[in-house]
Amino acid sequence: MEKKQKRYFLAEEEIPTQWYNIQADMATKPLPPLHPETKEPLTVDDLAKIFPRECCVQELDTEHAWIDIPQDVLDKYKFFRSTPLVRAYALEEALGTPAHIYFKNESVNPLGSHKINSALPQCYYAKQEGTTNVTTETGAGQWGMALSYASKLYGLEAAVYQVKITMQQKPYRSTVMRTFGAAVTGSPSMSTRAGKDIITRDPRHPGSLGTAISEAVELAQTTPNTKYTLGSVLNHVALHQSIIGLEAEKQMEKAGEYPDTVIACFGGGSNFGGLAFPFMRHNILNGKQTEFIAAEPASCPKLTRGQFRYDFGDEAGYTPLLPMFTLGHNFKPSNIHAGGLRYHGAGVIVSQLLKDGMMRGEDIPQLESFDAGMLFARTEGIVPAPESCHAIAATIREANKCKETGEEKVILFCLSGHGLIDMPSYEQYLNGDLQNYAITDEDVAKNLAELDELV
Amino acid sequence: MEKKQKRYFLAEEEIPTQWYNIQADMATKPLPPLHPETKEPLTVDDLAKIFPRECCVQELDTEHAWIDIPQDVLDKYKFFRSTPLVRAYALEEALGTPAHIYFKNESVNPLGSHKINSALPQCYYAKQEGTTNVTTETGAGQWGMALSYASKLYGLEAAVYQVKITMQQKPYRSTVMRTFGAAVTGSPSMSTRAGKDIITRDPRHPGSLGTAISEAVELAQTTPNTKYTLGSVLNHVALHQSIIGLEAEKQMEKAGEYPDTVIACFGGGSNFGGLAFPFMRHNILNGKQTEFIAAEPASCPKLTRGQFRYDFGDEAGYTPLLPMFTLGHNFKPSNIHAGGLRYHGAGVIVSQLLKDGMMRGEDIPQLESFDAGMLFARTEGIVPAPESCHAIAATIREANKCKETGEEKVILFCLSGHGLIDMPSYEQYLNGDLQNYAITDEDVAKNLAELDELV
Repeated sequence: MEKKQKRYFLAEEEIPTQWYNIQADMATKPLPPLHPETKEPLTVDDLAKIFPRECCVQELDTEHAWIDIPQDVLDKYKFFRSTPLVRAYALEEALGTPAHIYFKNESVNPLGSHKINSALPQCYYAKQEGTTNVTTETGAGQWGMALSYASKLYGLEAAVYQVKITMQQKPYRSTVMRTFGAAVTGSPSMSTRAGKDIITRDPRHPGSLGTAISEAVELAQTTPNTKYTLGSVLNHVALHQSIIGLEAEKQMEKAGEYPDTVIACFGGGSNFGGLAFPFMRHNILNGKQTEFIAAEPASCPKLTRGQFRYDFGDEAGYTPLLPMFTLGHNFKPSNIHAGGLRYHGAGVIVSQLLKDGMMRGEDIPQLESFDAGMLFARTEGIVPAPESCHAIAATIREANKCKETGEEKVILFCLSGHGLIDMPSYEQYLNGDLQNYAITDEDVAKNLAELDELV
Repeated sequence: MEKKQKRYFLAEEEIPTQWYNIQADMATKPLPPLHPETKEPLTVDDLAKIFPRECCVQELDTEHAWIDIPQDVLDKYKFFRSTPLVRAYALEEALGTPAHIYFKNESVNPLGSHKINSALPQCYYAKQEGTTNVTTETGAGQWGMALSYASKLYGLEAAVYQVKITMQQKPYRSTVMRTFGAAVTGSPSMSTRAGKDIITRDPRHPGSLGTAISEAVELAQTTPNTKYTLGSVLNHVALHQSIIGLEAEKQMEKAGEYPDTVIACFGGGSNFGGLAFPFMRHNILNGKQTEFIAAEPASCPKLTRGQFRYDFGDEAGYTPLLPMFTLGHNFKPSNIHAGGLRYHGAGVIVSQLLKDGMMRGEDIPQLESFDAGMLFARTEGIVPAPESCHAIAATIREANKCKETGEEKVILFCLSGHGLIDMPSYEQYLNGDLQNYAITDEDVAKNLAELDELV
């Protein structure tokens, strides 16, 4: 591999100064969020009761394709951005594929994932509006760590509800949050009404993003001067994450290539939307025909087996009703190690794009995801987060197809985070203790049938 | 901090293609390593019985200031190099210091530390020479992780002896090594004669770099086609690490500054020498007056309280006799969390430079190191390795002096690694369970007196 360039960076003055809002360019605009009682579309004022107002404006903005990144956020982005775009020569060689594989390496961000890209603006806006406290949920803990750091930078107090099973699987994550001064509680907990209800119904509930969101929202609603922040699913989060794809677009240009296939793992859609939307823009506006693949766990397959309908974003039914591909907000995901992907629904924008055939989902069994992660680690030297392993597995599937057909496709995926605090998961894999969790169409249908009575 | 550049990179064609060997420029050459029995200076042939031959040539080379980096190693360096040089604006602001603080961020390397810089060439040379297996020791585990990855890249089998106390304190590290296919054993173990002897003398021995080196050397000596590799202390390791300082020199130039003070934490000298020597070259040859500070733990203070003399590099006395500042190879360090700094002696080059007044040591109590690490994390967003916390603490001392005097000194330190797999240490700190370990001059004298009978 002599003389071939491995990594591409942007100079600080080349870093994008605006985020990209795909809502403005979508042929079919996303359906609005609805008030759970009245079923009326929600306004900025409604949403601003729990979220920072500017985030709510962004959430409902279907007009402006480009939104300025505040100067202060840009300055803090430069602590770690641009992240490298990397050509995965060693992985290509191990696969023997003619494909050109690139990855956007968000694992070198502070705390090891892409989550900081949205934590900074959410805390910035909260601070600007005079908020003193923020609450949030976290699945794998990557978002909780990022939010904890961002809140410390902006002088906000942070309370984080972390999915209980992840807290047990990966205890280092809560220590990182506490290192940044956050208060961390395992969810479901006895500290909220929602948590008490869930525990009463199911004393051994392992927690999910759905339970943690309920508790964090309740705490925000019942505490003065407090706003709720969310690490994925919502439109404004994908907006902030578009910095990933906008950088990658410029970096691919430096590499002299354009992706035929863009791949990211999928929980609620933040790293997927972040990488994909800026490239999808060229499919919408400029006749490009890039393929977009969202890699989800086979045990939590809302894109490949879910139903498009209005549903709650959380377990307790506190959030607005969102139009999403969902397994039902009452869905209790298996205890897979990719905690960040254990969410019942897909974000509103992605759900509409999937419905419109602009992208597709692909479901990855847990063992295949770790096989892929191991190969990536042993070639490229970065131990990937269990979530990111799904993107790698989907990439390997595509690269192997190219091996069969001989196509030199350009594949770009998002390495959303490293897995160095997920080592207990790898330990189980190495010991042969990991398994696949199957989910049948009947399971999904049963869950959605229950839902019909609830929503 | 608007508009000010935060990070400096090198283009791939700017990455140095030679390492810097300070031995060639030293006014007083280091004393030679001696055969423990005959007390005769050792030759390349002697050393090549346990180390890759090319490393032995480099070890004893006092003539050539510049040594070519093999093309294959350069290609693999480009997986992650250059690492960013970062201006620590947020830390400066928190300290209210007029000093300009820069750090070389080796924490974004694969596996999170600078150790990969020497693991790659050591495995490359071993492979070139037809070796099939490598052994090594590891303290904190950073070196063991890097060596495990490098050996996998070069198709070598790796056996790692990890200090037992660190294995218990930070279990994730051995999982990372196993992820790369290495066999990991806690030291002292019952798998070697050296280990058995140590355990017999002291059944509760927590292990040290000294015990782990003995076991790894013994395994190499008693296994066909096997070479021993070392992560610090030796001259060729500092040579490979000079890539850090050579890059930093070019990057400081891009920043338009030159360091008044260069700081790194100190275990055996690999990250210190790596950052410092290329700058020290200009003190020797070009009349610069940069100050060099090696930050060591107050509980393992060989630079500030040790004696300059010949001593063994390991607990069992297998290694050559090395001329070093030492606390005695029989020194049993306290169970501090900076496992990489728990070593009784300083590398040969650094020992000579210290003797000649070219640098100084500074000892940092454990709690001060974690105080510094916490401040760094909460400002710059990177949780530092406990080892690196020592460099940060020394940097803060210097920056606070500048605050008193008003001097705008330029301080450059090495962030040798991140601490994301060291979170149990932070957990103890946050819970108030960490303590300082004092060591008196009497303790040191007693230890060295015992040594006189042994060596």
